[in-house]
Amino acid sequence: MLIAVIGGGQCSAEEVSLAEAVGRGLARRGAILICGGLGGVMEAACKGAKSEGGTTIGILPGEDRSAANPYVDTPIVTGIGYARNLIVVKSAEAVIAIDGSYGTLSEIAYALQSGIPVIGLDTWSLSLNEQLDHSIIQAQHAEEAVEKAIAAALEKKKD
Amino acid sequence: MLIAVIGGGQCSAEEVSLAEAVGRGLARRGAILICGGLGGVMEAACKGAKSEGGTTIGILPGEDRSAANPYVDTPIVTGIGYARNLIVVKSAEAVIAIDGSYGTLSEIAYALQSGIPVIGLDTWSLSLNEQLDHSIIQAQHAEEAVEKAIAAALEKKKD
Amino acid sequence: MLIAVIGGGQCSAEEVSLAEAVGRGLARRGAILICGGLGGVMEAACKGAKSEGGTTIGILPGEDRSAANPYVDTPIVTGIGYARNLIVVKSAEAVIAIDGSYGTLSEIAYALQSGIPVIGLDTWSLSLNEQLDHSIIQAQHAEEAVEKAIAAALEKKKD
Amino acid sequence: MLIAVIGGGQCSAEEVSLAEAVGRGLARRGAILICGGLGGVMEAACKGAKSEGGTTIGILPGEDRSAANPYVDTPIVTGIGYARNLIVVKSAEAVIAIDGSYGTLSEIAYALQSGIPVIGLDTWSLSLNEQLDHSIIQAQHAEEAVEKAIAAALEKKKD
Repeated sequence: MLIAVIGGGQCSAEEVSLAEAVGRGLARRGAILICGGLGGVMEAACKGAKSEGGTTIGILPGEDRSAANPYVDTPIVTGIGYARNLIVVKSAEAVIAIDGSYGTLSEIAYALQSGIPVIGLDTWSLSLNEQLDHSIIQAQHAEEAVEKAIAAALEKKKD
Repeated sequence: MLIAVIGGGQCSAEEVSLAEAVGRGLARRGAILICGGLGGVMEAACKGAKSEGGTTIGILPGEDRSAANPYVDTPIVTGIGYARNLIVVKSAEAVIAIDGSYGTLSEIAYALQSGIPVIGLDTWSLSLNEQLDHSIIQAQHAEEAVEKAIAAALEKKKD
Repeated sequence: MLIAVIGGGQCSAEEVSLAEAVGRGLARRGAILICGGLGGVMEAACKGAKSEGGTTIGILPGEDRSAANPYVDTPIVTGIGYARNLIVVKSAEAVIAIDGSYGTLSEIAYALQSGIPVIGLDTWSLSLNEQLDHSIIQAQHAEEAVEKAIAAALEKKKD
Repeated sequence: MLIAVIGGGQCSAEEVSLAEAVGRGLARRGAILICGGLGGVMEAACKGAKSEGGTTIGILPGEDRSAANPYVDTPIVTGIGYARNLIVVKSAEAVIAIDGSYGTLSEIAYALQSGIPVIGLDTWSLSLNEQLDHSIIQAQHAEEAVEKAIAAALEKKKD
């Protein structure tokens, strides 16, 4: 099972902790972690996954495989810039979003459009005509996010 | 000046009216309209622009130029699917968003990330940690959206 | 009618002359010129087209519209790097290739795969199992390339 | 080490044999096989790799992971159509090309442009101004192609 972790290339210490814990949880559950392959949330999640013997894939925006963070097992070199975000999301069976940048918001929206479950940790909430949109599955901590992501991915597989 | 109009490929009669009025307004102001080239909001905006002698560009997702709506002057054939949305947004000096689909949300987020002004008509509002995000410039009607888009594009040019 | 001119971002003085003459010829025949929007062959072709009152579109690889050469009327900002080459080729009804770089070869091959006619000026020839492949329509000078490109595009439209 | 195998989605029985043998050889040498994830040469190469306990990655053009052939371990879902070919090539440390379609030619050219070694099995040869271009490293059989690809990838790493 491929689960994506999305979030900023720069992030706070708290987000690093969250992302590492998510990475560890995914690895313990046997999920392959897919991400954008760079620093910040992506690196922390990969580091967590590797500390538990997990597998990591990094979908890189640029032309150079050496841009991958040191915890990426398999770097995929796209050369298509931010458009690679869509590949991270589309390749995943569920997405865990950590942080509040517009880049992460675009990936959340893109996943929801594609029918891929999104679990949110300290991230955006959405309203349309003053009605809260409940499509993002909110989680309070890393372990809950991992459980909900795996459950949602399994649920989706049954469809 | 290139101004993007984004919105769903299927839309309500009200959204058709809004989009046509936006297209007419852009043409009257001499702006070139860029959009995703298909139906719904995109077609209505192009139709409006052509009715006032404007110029329209359609950035198509598929492999076939004949998928363009009949009001597209210049079809650009990308073959990269939804990733073409980024090209619509990036090529514009300001973006007018009409509607409430996740696809439109992803484009709004993407434009905000890229520093391109977004004017919203009947579209999403965003919150982060229960704080409303004010980055989308809200407009109440088509003419206001056009004025604000052109003003924001001119303001950005000065930077 | 959209005709693409492809060739290197750096080129010889002879290629500059050829590309300018091709641009002038396309403009005189009323074709819109589409290219990668940068320097070398692309800039020379756009300059030629503008000198005869033609219209030019540049499909840019990067994130910045100001990278377009000064003879591009409408810059399309893709942010997808070299993958934008496919968009240049796909959007055209025929392609004129000037030069002998591998980048140009990839675009020639891509156009042939997509069934888009390719006219070659001082460019590659291809062999498969020691049999010459005749798919590239060779031209000896700029005017011949323009005539053959327009004829091939019209022929293709009839299909 | 990631080695790409490129070739048509439809191919002859002889090409199937070649591709399977290449896949087996790459797996025995411990290389990860990356390809376009679909049928023909891609499927045969993946099948060969799996028969020797290798690892396979498929970079899919469409929106649906189930389009991957049954021998793909990790499907990457791009949604960007043929532009995904560039990702197959860029992600590899060397490329083995099997067959003579224009799609394969475009990938060969693209790899050569990016400085990625290309080993050819029953594929194109290139001439510029009647001079043969020797950039494609020709191989006569599958085992030779595998050896040359791995040697070229190791050589490139030293640069």
